[in-house]
Amino acid sequence: MADGSQRGEFQLINELLVPLAAGQTGAAGLSNDAATLDVPEGRQLVLTKDMMVAGVHFLPDDPPDLIARKLLRVNLSDIAAMGAKPEAYMLGLALPVEINDRWLESFTGGLAQDQQTFGIGLLGGDTVSSPGPLTLSVTALGTVEQGRAISRCGAQPGDKLVVTGTIGDAALGLQVLRGGIEDPSGYLADRYRLPRPRLHIGQAAVGIVSAGLDISDGLVADVSHLCAVSGVGAVIHADQIPLSPQAEAALEADPTLLETILTGGDDYELVFAVPPSQSDRFIALQKSAHCSVIGEVVRTPGVTVVNHFGASVSLKSSGFRHR
Amino acid sequence: MADGSQRGEFQLINELLVPLAAGQTGAAGLSNDAATLDVPEGRQLVLTKDMMVAGVHFLPDDPPDLIARKLLRVNLSDIAAMGAKPEAYMLGLALPVEINDRWLESFTGGLAQDQQTFGIGLLGGDTVSSPGPLTLSVTALGTVEQGRAISRCGAQPGDKLVVTGTIGDAALGLQVLRGGIEDPSGYLADRYRLPRPRLHIGQAAVGIVSAGLDISDGLVADVSHLCAVSGVGAVIHADQIPLSPQAEAALEADPTLLETILTGGDDYELVFAVPPSQSDRFIALQKSAHCSVIGEVVRTPGVTVVNHFGASVSLKSSGFRHR
Repeated sequence: MADGSQRGEFQLINELLVPLAAGQTGAAGLSNDAATLDVPEGRQLVLTKDMMVAGVHFLPDDPPDLIARKLLRVNLSDIAAMGAKPEAYMLGLALPVEINDRWLESFTGGLAQDQQTFGIGLLGGDTVSSPGPLTLSVTALGTVEQGRAISRCGAQPGDKLVVTGTIGDAALGLQVLRGGIEDPSGYLADRYRLPRPRLHIGQAAVGIVSAGLDISDGLVADVSHLCAVSGVGAVIHADQIPLSPQAEAALEADPTLLETILTGGDDYELVFAVPPSQSDRFIALQKSAHCSVIGEVVRTPGVTVVNHFGASVSLKSSGFRHR
Repeated sequence: MADGSQRGEFQLINELLVPLAAGQTGAAGLSNDAATLDVPEGRQLVLTKDMMVAGVHFLPDDPPDLIARKLLRVNLSDIAAMGAKPEAYMLGLALPVEINDRWLESFTGGLAQDQQTFGIGLLGGDTVSSPGPLTLSVTALGTVEQGRAISRCGAQPGDKLVVTGTIGDAALGLQVLRGGIEDPSGYLADRYRLPRPRLHIGQAAVGIVSAGLDISDGLVADVSHLCAVSGVGAVIHADQIPLSPQAEAALEADPTLLETILTGGDDYELVFAVPPSQSDRFIALQKSAHCSVIGEVVRTPGVTVVNHFGASVSLKSSGFRHR
């Protein structure tokens, strides 16, 4: 862990990364070749890995602490989608020479902040020098009760389609940042900059939902992924999609933004299929967490979006693909 | 997993990566947001992450299958150093546009070959596009009996210092590739190109050794790491360092190559400290695996290399630093 191309960097990284591993016994102060992790009896490990590259997934001059927190959170969103409790993470950094001490201090400060927010710690990793763009890699680790992880397959015709939170804010936020939409509240841009992994509702959904995943590529694209793996189709009712007041205002000003809301990425909300047999438990779940029925799973493959007259909404693109 | 910047790439990667995950139930055909892994009762997870960047850790035109196998093996060497049994791995790929189908076929072919050699499978990961150099990231996962992982701390004065295999071959191999040394057998260059993670001896050493790590930065540098973490020092006897016939021939032709052997990196052998109380079990271990006593752990911090007259050998550099 934490060898750098220069002596100064080597020491700096040790000074900045070792404290992030303080709460993880198995990290052994990042002093070993590998880390250890205990998985409690009756629980199963859940693992995900997401990479982010400067110029592709973030801008090189984005605030380093926000980059760090987004990196952790896109991984934690996958953990949430599986219904798992986050435990720890491994961090890989490929650092170009222009990354200086101050940048690294801000970056690790962002990691420290979100470690506290989500109750996780750094377990190990690798730091290398690179002639290319800053490239970040996280493997996030969680645990779930044995055999109870939520998967993408399992949705059945007749299941209700459910989403958490509000949809489209992140894609609209990107348009705010590009100057296409106004949002003086800053809410939409903030939703784009910093995902809110739905960890509590993910864990609460275990045993209630038949399938689920997180919305990173866009609502229609991700519902399509779920349907493809489950061998089913879905109908989404456009007027049932939960919108923030800011998104509602934007849509009122420009109705063509419906396409952005339906197909834009980066929301990191969760979408679930809920079988009729679980409707009572689902209604109980709704009392403690913000989630909305937006449609239903059907036998015919493909995803159709219908308006409040029941007519299908045609879309130019099915999903935002940034990877 | 496996989203690509182009549709063709997306499909190709699915075609090439999904088969690598066939043996891992928890990978679910790479169809979920995250993978699951069962850790058997009484065992503990061991995790390590190593990154490799084109132009830093390998040459962009190195054979892709060899790059893949080296990537896996440097990670497995860390698993070996902890005394763990390898189980699976997560793969991260940041791909520049010049990486074509043929390159990826060869790369995944190398992964498939070594998956079979080491009895592991692909569990998940992420594939992103990058404007920069090819950047590879692996998180390797192993298991070890609860609380029995070998660590770097624990070496005590009086312990014997032991290495596996032969030392210096990889660094001499790099010189062969650069045209500085002749080795018609190809053995030295091969040792540089393809590490041989010492998984069996690592697992057999559990309970016998007081500390251990793998030799990636060079014998003297890595013994220094072990000593620093354990709060001890070491004396290495230069004439007890096990050499391959090819390394012996090179050293005979040019005695100044002793420095290369002592400080060159990339051997990926293991170094252990063995307490006197375990000498019988160590001798039994030696019957089944090639390992040699090269010195002893002492109270005084620092690592000294002595020749067969007992005089200390002075070194210009203490270790090869390629990260």
